[in-house]
Amino acid sequence: MQKPTLPKGTRDFGPSKMIRRNFLINNIKEVFAKYGYLPLETPAMENLSVLTGKYGDEGDKLLYKILNSGDFLSKLTPDEFSKGAKEITGKIAEKGLRYDLTVPFARYVVMNQHEINFPFRRYQIQPVWRADRPQKGRYREFFQCDADVVGTDSLICEAEIVAIINEVFDRLKLNDFVININNRKILTGITEVIDAPGKESDFCVAIDKLDKIGREKVEEELLQKGFSQNSLQKMAPVFEISGSNQEKIAVLKELLSGSEIGLQGVVEIEEVLTNLNLMNITEANLNFDVTLARGLSYYTGAIFEVKMLNVKIGSVGGGGRYDNLTGVFGLEGMSGIGFSFGIDRLYDVLEALELFPDSEHVVTQILIVHFDKKTQDHGLGLLQAFRKENISCEIFPDLAKLKKQLNYANRNNIPYVLVVGEEELKSKEYTLKNMNKGEQKQLTLEQIIKELT
Amino acid sequence: MQKPTLPKGTRDFGPSKMIRRNFLINNIKEVFAKYGYLPLETPAMENLSVLTGKYGDEGDKLLYKILNSGDFLSKLTPDEFSKGAKEITGKIAEKGLRYDLTVPFARYVVMNQHEINFPFRRYQIQPVWRADRPQKGRYREFFQCDADVVGTDSLICEAEIVAIINEVFDRLKLNDFVININNRKILTGITEVIDAPGKESDFCVAIDKLDKIGREKVEEELLQKGFSQNSLQKMAPVFEISGSNQEKIAVLKELLSGSEIGLQGVVEIEEVLTNLNLMNITEANLNFDVTLARGLSYYTGAIFEVKMLNVKIGSVGGGGRYDNLTGVFGLEGMSGIGFSFGIDRLYDVLEALELFPDSEHVVTQILIVHFDKKTQDHGLGLLQAFRKENISCEIFPDLAKLKKQLNYANRNNIPYVLVVGEEELKSKEYTLKNMNKGEQKQLTLEQIIKELT
Repeated sequence: MQKPTLPKGTRDFGPSKMIRRNFLINNIKEVFAKYGYLPLETPAMENLSVLTGKYGDEGDKLLYKILNSGDFLSKLTPDEFSKGAKEITGKIAEKGLRYDLTVPFARYVVMNQHEINFPFRRYQIQPVWRADRPQKGRYREFFQCDADVVGTDSLICEAEIVAIINEVFDRLKLNDFVININNRKILTGITEVIDAPGKESDFCVAIDKLDKIGREKVEEELLQKGFSQNSLQKMAPVFEISGSNQEKIAVLKELLSGSEIGLQGVVEIEEVLTNLNLMNITEANLNFDVTLARGLSYYTGAIFEVKMLNVKIGSVGGGGRYDNLTGVFGLEGMSGIGFSFGIDRLYDVLEALELFPDSEHVVTQILIVHFDKKTQDHGLGLLQAFRKENISCEIFPDLAKLKKQLNYANRNNIPYVLVVGEEELKSKEYTLKNMNKGEQKQLTLEQIIKELT
Repeated sequence: MQKPTLPKGTRDFGPSKMIRRNFLINNIKEVFAKYGYLPLETPAMENLSVLTGKYGDEGDKLLYKILNSGDFLSKLTPDEFSKGAKEITGKIAEKGLRYDLTVPFARYVVMNQHEINFPFRRYQIQPVWRADRPQKGRYREFFQCDADVVGTDSLICEAEIVAIINEVFDRLKLNDFVININNRKILTGITEVIDAPGKESDFCVAIDKLDKIGREKVEEELLQKGFSQNSLQKMAPVFEISGSNQEKIAVLKELLSGSEIGLQGVVEIEEVLTNLNLMNITEANLNFDVTLARGLSYYTGAIFEVKMLNVKIGSVGGGGRYDNLTGVFGLEGMSGIGFSFGIDRLYDVLEALELFPDSEHVVTQILIVHFDKKTQDHGLGLLQAFRKENISCEIFPDLAKLKKQLNYANRNNIPYVLVVGEEELKSKEYTLKNMNKGEQKQLTLEQIIKELT
């Protein structure tokens, strides 16, 4: 007999995990809806022509490919086999599993561009799959939780995202966090004013590691990448910048005075702050971090990252503005901004800080227990009375010892147990046990319903 | 430039579809929870060793297989290629996509048997994938919505499922439906008493078509399958049975008096009816249909099927009791009962009967519109006041003509628009347009909030 197993890097979400995940995800969904975001879901399978080439060479390798059904070898000539796996993949697999939610969203926008009401706000919470090496906290199936607005370049959207993050974290009772913000144009501007134009990509890769490896190592890397000593000297103020967001803005306006695009980036940051002020959001947990770079090359404006201050874990959210989401599918000039919550990490944070409410664990409010067929039959008559009042309830379906029935209630966190015994049949007063407090009372059905609602 | 496409047989669920689907699914979820069912989700990918052989030869062909990542040819010798697709599949693909929710559930139960609190009630609403020929109403990615109880053979569970179906349909305002119920033991019993023991499978296949092809054709098919004329004569009362459920029970008790298992099936039906009576569910929309067979061979007791009476569509739900869900994975004697709602068909029914509530379409309650930067800035100051009261709202993010902004509100079914003009800036009385009625009023922010809550 085979012993069944789960594929490496995948997880079952059993009831207690599901209930907690739903608490987290429902809170996020409610905030998205409050800010006008609409739900979207796309299929797990996409044509490989849609996915391939969108995530770089490394990404292409991590795509899960689905074997064509039927005789998948029919398109291959015998001598093609010898060319190896890479060459024949395209002939035996035409579909792949979703790698992220951004490319399917771009595809959706292009395919439905004439029906969509722009500016289009959508959120999407679905699993994605990557054939990555599984390790702690990294899965081959994991969930992304994205919100994007496309069809507008208004900097109000940036401020709204900051507002959304704050509202979600407030609901989750997460207080110690920071939203780091920067602007890709500022990074471009810096490469201009330090006489390293066109080296933005190397610059971003290096500066992005500042947190982890420190200034010295970053400078070493830049030298290796061909940045001059002179460039590094001119860059010094970037490392030394400090103070309030306004103070940093003042320093950068000076530093970037020779770069039109750099100055525009600073002005955009300023406008986001202004918009937040106009929205009366004074405590936005926003930190202008001029060394924030973020990996994704398609960002062209604001970039965000959310970090916890009291739990050691990577960023729990991030995003940014892009000028051309859909260009790769032939629809140019579709500017937008996206943000993504890291659901798996937020789950771990809530667990570490014990912020999942106990009440969320309760599915069934009351379990009806009994001693024999006669008392069980009587118990059946009580079920619908509770359900009519929207009180979730169960009856223990088997004839079993009371201890077994109470044990079942305990293990499922059922807070109340109603005991139907021989006496209760006559008196119509039932024993109601509060499983948390260990107390019990004799009450009529009406009184019990009152107690539970 | 490539024009992006969706894989055949798959669908995007855009906002208006998502909102309706969520209405349907949330109603079902709430009822499941009320009856003590707990949520479970399993990964999209399963090891092929778990999936293969569970759905018959036809099912195996319809499994989507995932190409091993990296050099998937490395386990193949050159001469193995010539053996053809069927032979090499197992060597180049170790994982497949979930084909239903029952096998993953059985796997979950076996893998977690020592932690699960039995009887275990779980519901699971997730997509499944089948490489079937796509056609109207049949998709390659579609959703299943299953609820099962395992670890008990109590016939209370059968009655509870009938109660759940009634409550879900009541919430959805679906009245004209019938729950057909039968019992596999009765079908076995019939083959015994008509002297065709062991021919249950052929009998079920034929009788299952009665609805579609009529008695004569069913009898023809049975003759072809080797049933004798004598058997058919003995079977006549089965076709002629009519009246109330109690009347049918009486006829069958007579007819099956020679079959122990057949009589047990009738007694089980009787007990389900008794349990429903004890639960005070008198209008259960339950019809004892002795010709109901259902395809799945693993059913061993009660079988169900739900049909609409006022919309022409196949069954919108079904299920039954099984004795041995997990035997194939080495855990014997796990009896249980499952039921599944046909989400896609129920969606079509609700649409056909126009039962989706309009209010469910509303995501954003109020859109703030403006004439220029100054009035837009002022509008920004109003946003959070609404959101604090849990009123979902948006501001049009671009500077655009009023007509364009109102058109946006109309297309997104936003019921209210708040206009900020030059005068409103001074008076602090805003124009509130009711987009459905076409009326407008001048109100303060407080008055508007009062109007909307």
